[in-house]
Formats: sequence, structure tokens, C-alpha cells
Amino acid sequence: MALDLAPDFAVTIADSRADALSRVAERCKHDGLTVRTLTADLSDPATIKGLVAPFDIVLGALASRIAFSALRAVIEANKPYADISFMGEDALDLDSLAKERGVTAVVDMGVAPGMSHLLAGHAAAMLHPCESIEIYVGGLPVERRWPYQYKAAFSPADVVEEYTRPARLVEHGDVVVRTALSEPELMEFDGVGTLEAFNTDGLRSLAATHLGRVPMMKEKTLRYPGHIELMRVLRETGLFSEEAVEVGLAGGGTGKVRPRDLMARLLFPMWTYAPGEEDLTVMRVIADGVKHGKRVRMRWDLSDRYDKASRCTSMARTTAFPCTIVARMLAAGEIRQTGVIVPELLGPDEALVGRVLDEHKRRGVEYQFREEVLPARG
Amino acid sequence: MALDLAPDFAVTIADSRADALSRVAERCKHDGLTVRTLTADLSDPATIKGLVAPFDIVLGALASRIAFSALRAVIEANKPYADISFMGEDALDLDSLAKERGVTAVVDMGVAPGMSHLLAGHAAAMLHPCESIEIYVGGLPVERRWPYQYKAAFSPADVVEEYTRPARLVEHGDVVVRTALSEPELMEFDGVGTLEAFNTDGLRSLAATHLGRVPMMKEKTLRYPGHIELMRVLRETGLFSEEAVEVGLAGGGTGKVRPRDLMARLLFPMWTYAPGEEDLTVMRVIADGVKHGKRVRMRWDLSDRYDKASRCTSMARTTAFPCTIVARMLAAGEIRQTGVIVPELLGPDEALVGRVLDEHKRRGVEYQFREEVLPARG
Repeated sequence: MALDLAPDFAVTIADSRADALSRVAERCKHDGLTVRTLTADLSDPATIKGLVAPFDIVLGALASRIAFSALRAVIEANKPYADISFMGEDALDLDSLAKERGVTAVVDMGVAPGMSHLLAGHAAAMLHPCESIEIYVGGLPVERRWPYQYKAAFSPADVVEEYTRPARLVEHGDVVVRTALSEPELMEFDGVGTLEAFNTDGLRSLAATHLGRVPMMKEKTLRYPGHIELMRVLRETGLFSEEAVEVGLAGGGTGKVRPRDLMARLLFPMWTYAPGEEDLTVMRVIADGVKHGKRVRMRWDLSDRYDKASRCTSMARTTAFPCTIVARMLAAGEIRQTGVIVPELLGPDEALVGRVLDEHKRRGVEYQFREEVLPARG
Repeated sequence: MALDLAPDFAVTIADSRADALSRVAERCKHDGLTVRTLTADLSDPATIKGLVAPFDIVLGALASRIAFSALRAVIEANKPYADISFMGEDALDLDSLAKERGVTAVVDMGVAPGMSHLLAGHAAAMLHPCESIEIYVGGLPVERRWPYQYKAAFSPADVVEEYTRPARLVEHGDVVVRTALSEPELMEFDGVGTLEAFNTDGLRSLAATHLGRVPMMKEKTLRYPGHIELMRVLRETGLFSEEAVEVGLAGGGTGKVRPRDLMARLLFPMWTYAPGEEDLTVMRVIADGVKHGKRVRMRWDLSDRYDKASRCTSMARTTAFPCTIVARMLAAGEIRQTGVIVPELLGPDEALVGRVLDEHKRRGVEYQFREEVLPARG
């Protein structure tokens, strides 16, 4: 985010970790860019309010547990906000507060949620009716290593959460709940090969904003084939459980251990990207429905890789750019609506979606679009 | 063992667990048989010596950690002994003691080690030269359940040990060491289907008694395909490790936990046979060599199942009968040689091997033998 904005804006980055701040500053300097840094405890809303006061635009990329209170603080400070934090709370609960204050806060504005939802919202607006929306997304290491063929581009604890939390889907107009890791299916992706998709709880706001408008909606995560089966085995064995089990301790006596805690100790080092290790991001958004009287399928495909020139991971780029592009639009006054805005609500604005895709392309991230005619329904 | 011997002998069973004793007594009673039981601590050699004094023949089926001291105690009490305990120590270290005392102690006399070694020793004596011996053996549940398709017919901790302890094989006359679970291969077994064989440390005494006589020897364990891969993944992840890892405890603070201890808590309940659940035992012993000037392959196949009539598991029957049959031979004075005898040393006695196989057949456990001519070596 900083690298993208620093050429055109006076950027200040705040974080509680001084080492992270100096890494970013060093990195920007290496590219001939200047950013200011501030060490601050962002879990404190009062700190955030004071911090953002002198600035025109605020971007958020925070730990999920402090993201909601930060959102409220930025709204109360009357600042436009573009956020990629993956909060557990419903950001739309702050919509009326933001509207009262005349603030625009675009949240969940990464790749997925983010571009996934923008494109879904766009398709839903273009199709009359929109029959279904499917989102498939995954961040993967380029090199597949036995046994997991996986590295976590973000918090591995959140990945385990994704493998255990029941997945909400919309089927025939109703929200239904499926076990995580369920309904695996193999899919082909040009340049990547066969991946396996499985249910995860990724619809988020879409399941609310488009309920009653799109009868079938699902989001699935992509992994190399074989990974899911191992995750199902570990889960079945109880290794992802947070229920404490009494075991003998090496020092003598017994203790109650949550299997997931031990698993984290063993698994997460295996799931960590080595410095400079190449990753890729794959996403496919499919929407079926009727356009100009014909049944069509609108489909976007993203297949992005680690960028050697900028030494930026694909996950960093594909997640940061949607947010910086929207932040630039906020700065330019191009997004007029106020309130808390989830990306699908920007989708009906064809010009805006086109701009966002063009800006991605300029940055080397290309969403391939194609539309095909489907057979009429019987 | 008790069920097999009680019709013809006055049987007394000793164990430290009163509940186990009453289960056996009940079971024998149900079949119209009487056995006496004695509660005793068999980890104490002096107790064993006193205990066995009034008896003619002793059979052993003990926890591996107390089996060696029990063997010594029985030898020192001058009693003939037939044993199926899976001791870690080398029983042959007590050979001279047994010879001095004029005692015969047949050890490792179950199915594998046991019949495996008796047949291997037999083949080695029939072939001039014997080029190779291969032993494949597995105890499996009839019903294959995801994910492990496995139940442990004996101590599951010993199973994990089998999956981690380096395997000793003999190749071109030398003992070589391979990683446990290595060199998996698919094999077909009539009536069972495809199984996967992998290296385990099961040659035991054979690697010593037949070193220099049979240049190629290996023992592999059999599982349903897929099981090994999961074991390799768990091992690779460190879940079988005995090296303590510091983790947060549910009650607060941290503690050092051996991953294998937690794994045992989670895995072993999944690996436990339900009462009455059917098991099967599969074994194949192959020996290649020259007989009467022709290269031949001698091969024995065992495919045994849970016996509904006697409600005895296949593992119990196939493991107990070799020991009771040998015990009966000891009682009848049919085994004259003294010392600690491992089964392969009985193999050259064609009449004895024939008797043992016939006695198995009478009990419904059939080893199928076939011999085929092999192409001459180039």
C-alpha cells in the first residue's frame, strides 16, 4: 500500500511494531520513496482518533480483533477510510453512524473479500435476473512441497479457522450452513493446473446484501489437490480442536492442552513462506443470469504471480491494490455515497468497476473477463 | 491360549489386573471350561519364580518391558517356556543360561514374529542356496473406515513405535537400515484386495541367525492403501515426536508436551476395536532359492478372519495358536533341544513344521503353501 501511494501522496504509517515500521521505511527508501512512520497502539480508539486528525485519507490493514473498533474511531474522526482488515464483526452495523457523520468507509476492500465482491455486485446489477454467483479464490506457493503443498500468505491461525468454521452459502434464496472443507471439487486454471475447491465461510456481506436478489451464492477456497484431505484428517483426529485434553508433561505431572495450540507450533513453521519464495493468487468469479434476453455467464479470472521486479508477493499486491485504488478515488472525491460501503455496493457503477480493473492492469494485475451464452433454461 | 489349552490341561492364569482375569475366567466358563486365576505382579522375577514352581509348562504373553526379566525368571525356575511377548532385549542373550539349566524356552512364538520365522527358517533349510526371504504381515479391521482404515490389535503405542523406529533389513549379506514407513509397494491378496507394504523393523532374530546364510531378507507391514501416507504426514509434521514442545496450557501458563503423548490421546481411541468388531490377519512368506537343482519360490499365504463361532479375533487366534501348539509339544517332550530357541531354529525340522501347520488347520487357521519354478539366473 505504501509503495503504491508514496509516489503521489505524503504517506505516514502507524504500527505498534517498530521493527515492521523500519522494514517498510527501508523498503520504500530502496525504491527512492519516502514515508513517515509512527509507533502507536492501534488497539486504542482514542489513539487512532488523535493520530488520523491531520490526514485526508486513512487506510486500514489491521489485525482482525482490533479492526472494528478502529473503523468506529476513524468514522468518529470524520475521515474517509479504505480498509482491508478481516474483522469478525459486521462493519455494516456502523453504517448509520458513518451516514450521520457524512463519512465514506469502504471496508473488506482486498482481493477476497474485495475484488470478488465488487465483481459479484457488478454482475448482479448487469443480469436480470442474476441466477447465481460463485467465487473461487486461493493464495498458494508456486513450489508444491510434500506434504501440505501450502504456505499461508496471512495469519496461519486464520487459515485453521477457515478450515473449521461452518461455511454459510445461499441456496434457493436461503442461507444454508455447510461444514468447512466440504464439497471438494476439482477445477482447472490456465497456467496453474488443477486445483481443489472447498466450502469456506467467505460470502460475508454478500449473503446479506444480495439475499433475495441472487438465489444461489457460494464462495470456495482453492488449494492444490490433496491438501484438503489432509486438513480433514487432522480435523477428524481432533488436532484442530480447542477443547483442552489432559496429557502428561515432559517436566512431570499433567496439564490441559488445546490440540490446536500444539498443532500451531508444529504446523505453522511448515506453512511459512521463505524470504523471496514465490506465491500465486488465483481467483475466479462466475455469475450466471439473463442479459438482453439471453442467458449468459460472466466470468473473471485472476492468475497473478510473485513480482520479481518489485519483490512483492502476489498476495500483497492483489490485496493492496484494490484498497489503494479506492483510497485514491476517495481522495479525488470520486466516491460520493456516504456510510459503510462493502465492495459489492460499488459494483453497479460500471465506470467505477472499469476504472478499478484498469488501475489493476496498470499495476500488472490482470482480471481476464469473458462472457459466454448459456443454453436457455428448460 | 487359555481356551485352547483348558480342554486338555489344568490351566492357571496369572495377571496383575483382576478385571482381565475375571473376563478370561468368565469366557472360559461360558465355553464350559475351567481355569484358575491368580492376581500377581509379574514385573517381579521372584514372584514369577514362586508362581511357576508347581507347574509343568509356562506360557508367556507379557508387556514388552517386563518380558525379558520374566524369561530369565522362568529359566531360573527350570521350567519349559513358550512365549509371545515382544521384548526389546535380545532373548538369545539368555541362551547359555537356559542351556546350563537344561531348559527349553521358545520365544517370539506368535504369528509374526513366530510363524513368519518358523516358515522362513524352514525355507532356508530346504533351499541350497536360499537367495532371499520376504515376510509381509498385517492385522487389519475388516471394515475400512476413513481416515485411517486401521485398528490396533495390540498396543497402539507399539504401532507408533513401528512407524518411527528405523527398520533393519539384510541386503547382499549386510544389515542395512531404512526409515520406517519407507519403500511402500502395492500387493494383491486374494479375498482381501490390494494392500500396501512398507518397511518395518520386524526381522528381529532372523537378521542374526540367518546373516551370512540368506543374503536378502526383509520384513514389511501391510495396511490398506492410504494409511502409510497419513502416518508419514503425521510423522513429518512432528506429531510422533517425543521431543517436548512448549505450549500454552488451558489453565494458564505454559508446559512442555511431547507431541506423541497428545497424539496417543487423540489417535488411540480411533484405533480401538469395538467389541465384536471383525478383524483379519494377512501374512505372506516368500523364499527364493534352489531346490533339487531348480530355482523355486516357496510361498505361504495366511488370510484369516475373526471367528464368529468362538468370538475370537483373528489376531488373538493366529498369535495364540503357534504358542499353544509349541507348548503342547514341550509338554509332550517333542522338542528336545535346550536353550533359548527362536522359531526359525525349529524350521529345519520338516516334521515339526508339518505338525505345527496341521495343528493350525485343525483350529481353522490355514497357511496355504505353493511352490513355483523360477527362471534360472542369468
